[in-house]
Amino acid sequence: MVGNKKLDVVIYDTTLRDGSQGEGISFSLDDKLKIAKKLDELGVAYIEGGWPGSNPKDLEFFRQVKNMEFKNSRITAFSSTRKAGIPIKQDNNIKTLLESGAQTAAIFGKSWDFHVLRALETTLEENLRMVRDTVSYLKDKGLEVIFDAEHFFDGYINNPDYALQVLKTAEEAGADWVVLCDTNGGTMPWEVEKIILEVKKHIKAPLGIHAHNDSACAVTNSLMAVRAGCTQVQGTMNGFGERCGNADLCAVIPNLELKMGLRCLPEGKLKNLTEAAHYISEIANMPHYNNQPFVGYGAFAHKGGVHVSALLKDALTYEHINPEDVGNHRRVLVSELSGLSNLLYKAREFNMDINNYDARTREVIKMIKELENQGFQFEGADASLELLLRKGFGQYEDFFKLNNLKIILEKSEEDNITSEAMIKVTVGDKVFHTAAEGDGPVNALDNCLRKALTEVYPEISEMHLTDYKVRVLNGNEGTAAKVRVLIESSDQTSKWSTVGVSENIIEASWQALVDSINYLLMKRRMPK
Amino acid sequence: MVGNKKLDVVIYDTTLRDGSQGEGISFSLDDKLKIAKKLDELGVAYIEGGWPGSNPKDLEFFRQVKNMEFKNSRITAFSSTRKAGIPIKQDNNIKTLLESGAQTAAIFGKSWDFHVLRALETTLEENLRMVRDTVSYLKDKGLEVIFDAEHFFDGYINNPDYALQVLKTAEEAGADWVVLCDTNGGTMPWEVEKIILEVKKHIKAPLGIHAHNDSACAVTNSLMAVRAGCTQVQGTMNGFGERCGNADLCAVIPNLELKMGLRCLPEGKLKNLTEAAHYISEIANMPHYNNQPFVGYGAFAHKGGVHVSALLKDALTYEHINPEDVGNHRRVLVSELSGLSNLLYKAREFNMDINNYDARTREVIKMIKELENQGFQFEGADASLELLLRKGFGQYEDFFKLNNLKIILEKSEEDNITSEAMIKVTVGDKVFHTAAEGDGPVNALDNCLRKALTEVYPEISEMHLTDYKVRVLNGNEGTAAKVRVLIESSDQTSKWSTVGVSENIIEASWQALVDSINYLLMKRRMPK
Repeated sequence: MVGNKKLDVVIYDTTLRDGSQGEGISFSLDDKLKIAKKLDELGVAYIEGGWPGSNPKDLEFFRQVKNMEFKNSRITAFSSTRKAGIPIKQDNNIKTLLESGAQTAAIFGKSWDFHVLRALETTLEENLRMVRDTVSYLKDKGLEVIFDAEHFFDGYINNPDYALQVLKTAEEAGADWVVLCDTNGGTMPWEVEKIILEVKKHIKAPLGIHAHNDSACAVTNSLMAVRAGCTQVQGTMNGFGERCGNADLCAVIPNLELKMGLRCLPEGKLKNLTEAAHYISEIANMPHYNNQPFVGYGAFAHKGGVHVSALLKDALTYEHINPEDVGNHRRVLVSELSGLSNLLYKAREFNMDINNYDARTREVIKMIKELENQGFQFEGADASLELLLRKGFGQYEDFFKLNNLKIILEKSEEDNITSEAMIKVTVGDKVFHTAAEGDGPVNALDNCLRKALTEVYPEISEMHLTDYKVRVLNGNEGTAAKVRVLIESSDQTSKWSTVGVSENIIEASWQALVDSINYLLMKRRMPK
Repeated sequence: MVGNKKLDVVIYDTTLRDGSQGEGISFSLDDKLKIAKKLDELGVAYIEGGWPGSNPKDLEFFRQVKNMEFKNSRITAFSSTRKAGIPIKQDNNIKTLLESGAQTAAIFGKSWDFHVLRALETTLEENLRMVRDTVSYLKDKGLEVIFDAEHFFDGYINNPDYALQVLKTAEEAGADWVVLCDTNGGTMPWEVEKIILEVKKHIKAPLGIHAHNDSACAVTNSLMAVRAGCTQVQGTMNGFGERCGNADLCAVIPNLELKMGLRCLPEGKLKNLTEAAHYISEIANMPHYNNQPFVGYGAFAHKGGVHVSALLKDALTYEHINPEDVGNHRRVLVSELSGLSNLLYKAREFNMDINNYDARTREVIKMIKELENQGFQFEGADASLELLLRKGFGQYEDFFKLNNLKIILEKSEEDNITSEAMIKVTVGDKVFHTAAEGDGPVNALDNCLRKALTEVYPEISEMHLTDYKVRVLNGNEGTAAKVRVLIESSDQTSKWSTVGVSENIIEASWQALVDSINYLLMKRRMPK
C-alpha cells in the first residue's frame, strides 16, 4: 500500500480511462504518462491507466509506466468480467490484463438485470458466474481487485435482489473493494444515500462510488455516498468523460477536505489542485472551463460593485473558502489591484528588484493589461513575461533586427504543399540573408532564422523547440480568427516558454520564436 | 397571476440580473429584451429584469418591457432594502424601483449578522427596520414582494436566531415570498435540507431557494430545498453568474419535471429547453459548454464502443432520459475507442443503407483506422466522415480539381505579415485562376478558393465558416509537429464540421476547407 492508511477517503482517478471517453479528448501515450506523473504528485491513491485489452496504446502505457516511480498512487488496469460462456483462462481481456503487470485490477460487471439480458444477452446466472470467476481468478494471481458494479443504482431500483446478489458474489469471490456505479448519471442524491445505507446492511467489503454528471448531481452524489459510508470516490480531473462527464475530482476533493473535514490527499497537497487541473486541461488540449468550481480561472473572480467593496473590507463576505487553500487566487475584475501583486511576485522570481511606487512598474502593468486584452496570456509564457519586464526597466535590448522575411508555399494537383522561407536580419553592422525549407511555413521560418543567426550566435544550435501549441481565440471568426501560439524551448540545462498572438498564425509564431531565441541569448550573457 | 396555480414549483429566472454578473457577459438593452421574450416562451413564472436603481440601461429595460406582451412570465425588478439611517421615501433605489412600473419587486436584505456589521456597517436593529420598512412600503404601493435573504445559510449557521428574526420581519411586513439565498455557494446539500426544515417551523410564507455553484452543489441544493418545502427556485439559464455561476435552470427544470414529477413549466414547454439554452448562449456570446447536463451538444454523445453496441439494442441502456424530452438529441461519435457498431449507427444517420457483411464497409473501416493513426479524428467532423463513407460506396465525386495554389507571406522590419493566395482550379472543362488577400495564410486561401468557385457554384456565398480549431498533435516535434484542423461551417439551415491533418498547417486547413465546400455542394444536390 502507499500510505493510504492515513486517509479517511481514497481518491480513484479515472481521467486516463473514463475521462478519455470525453468528446474531443484523445491522449497520446506521452500525454498519458505525463498526466499519471502529475496525478501522483497531486497524491491521488489510485490512477486508472487504461483498458489494456482494448487497444495497443493502453497496453504500451502499462509497459512503460512500470519503469516510473510513484510516490502516492497505485496504477490500476481496467477490464470487464470474462465473456459469457467461455472459461476464464481463454478470455483475452483478462489475459492482457495480467500481461500488463498492473498490481490492481478494476473489473466492471453488470448489476442491472435488464443490461444482462438486453446488452450482454446472457442469463442472470451466467453473469454471476462471470463476476465470481473473474474476481477469484485475479485474486488467486495475487492482484488487488476493485469490482465496479456498472449501473448499480438503476439495477437496484429495478431489481434490488439481483443487484445485491451481484455485489455479494464479488465480495465472496474476494473483491477488495465494491464500487457502486451510477453509469447513466440519472440517480438523485437522496436515492444514492438511501440505497447505499441499504447496501451497507448486506456488504462488509469497503464501498466506493462512481458517479456521472448527466443530472448535474455527480459531485453531490459522491459526497452523499461518503456520508452514507463509501470510502472510495472515483472521478476524473475537470470532470472529463463521456456525455456530461464524470464526478469532477477538482470539486469532490476540496469539498471532502474543507467542507467535510475528511482527509483524501496526503497533507499539504490540496494547494496543488488548481495547477494540476490546468496542467491536465492543457495536455488534453481542452479549454479550461472558466467558472469551474474551486479551480476555474474565474472561480474567485468578483465583478459586482457591492461584492468588491465588501471584499475589500473582509474576504469572507463573498468567498466560501480561502482560494489559496486549493492553489487558486482571487481576481477582482475591472481593477488593477490583482495584477500588481502578481507582477511583484513574478519579478521576485526573476530576481528583479521592483516595487509598486515605481512609475515603470505602472507602465509595465498597463502594457500587460493591454496585451492580455489582445489575447496574450503570460501564465504559460514566463520567458516572454521576463523579456517584457526587463525591457520596461531598461535591462534588455534585442539581439538582432529583422529587415524582411518572405514565405512561399506551393501546391500542385496531387502534391502536398512545399514551404520555403527567406530572411534578412541585421546584427550590429552585419547583414545575414539566407533561405531554408521546412515541413510547413513555421518550420521553414524556424530553420531559416536559425540558419541566419547561428554564425554570429553559435549557442543557438544547442537550443531545441520542445513544444508548440496553437489555440484559436475566437473560433467563430472562422479562418480570420486570432490565434495564440505557445512555444516551449530547452537547452541542456533549462526550459522556457514564449507566446505570440495575431490573426496570422505565422506572425504569432514569429513573435514566439523571436522571444525564445532572445531569451536564450540574454540568459547566456547574465552573470550566474 | 399568470396561471402559476397549476404549477408545483415556480421558476424564477435571474439570467438578466445575477447572470449578467458572469465574467465576459454584458447584455445590451436589445439582448435583454430578446432574452425576456425567449424566457416567456419557455414559460418560467418570473423574469428578473434587472436592478432599475443601479444603472440607466436596466431602467430603460423596464420602460420598454411594459409594452411587450408576456404569456407566462411576470417581470420583476431587483433592489436592496433601503439605506441605513434614512426614511424609506428618501431612498433613491426604491424610488426608481417604483418608477420602473414593475408589478413584482425582489428585495434583498442582509440576514447574516457578520455582514450587517462588517459590510453594511450598521446595527442589527436598524437592519431589521430596513427590511420591515422596505417590504411594507412596497406592499402598501400594491406590489408583489419577494424578499431575498442574502447569505441566509451562512447567517443561520453563525447566528440562527438573528437569521430567523430577519425572515420573520419580512414575513410580518407582508412579503409574498421569502427566498433563502446561499450567496457564497458554500453550503452543503444536507445543511440546506436541515436548515430549511428548521425554517419551515417558524415561517409560513411560501419559501424559495437561490443557490450559487461555488461548491458544485447549486443544482442539488435547489432540488433538496424543494424536497424540504421550497416552492420557488431561482437560477439562471446555463448557470451564468458571478464566480462559478448560479444554479443552472437547464438542469433544475428537467430534474424537477422528469425525476421528481413536479410541474414547473406549462405543459409541453420542456422540449423547448435546449433551444432556449443555446439561443441565450448565442445572445450572451458565451461558448455553450459542450458537456452541460441535459442541454449540452454532447450531453447525449456516445463514444465508447461497448456503450454504442448496447445503445443499438436499447437506448435506455446508456441514457437516463429520452433526449427529445428536453429538445436535445443523441449523437454517436466515431473514434479509435469505438468499433463497427458506431460506424453502422452513423451510416443510418446519413440515410445510408450499409451492413457489416459488405466488403466495402470493411474497406472503409480500414481506411478510417489508418487515417486515425495519422491523427485524423472524425468524432467532431461528421461531414468529412460522410464524404469518406460515400466515396467508399461510390456515391460521391469531387466538385472541383486543384491545378495549383501558391501562398506568399511577406514581412518587413516593423510591419505585420501580409498574406496573398493564388489558386487555379478546374470544374468540368473550365479553368478558374484568381488571387486574394487575407488576415493570414488560411484566410487568404479561404477567400481565394471561394472567389475561384463562386462563379460556377453561387451557393458557396451562402456558406460561412463559424469555427476554426487547431490542435498540435505531437508538440515535442516543435515547429515540425503535425497539426489537426477542425472547421465548422454553416448555411441558413444547417451546420457541418470537417477535418484535415498534416505537418503543414496550410495543407491541413486546405483539406478541411475542401471537404467543407464539397459537403455543401453534395447536400444541395441530394433529393430532400
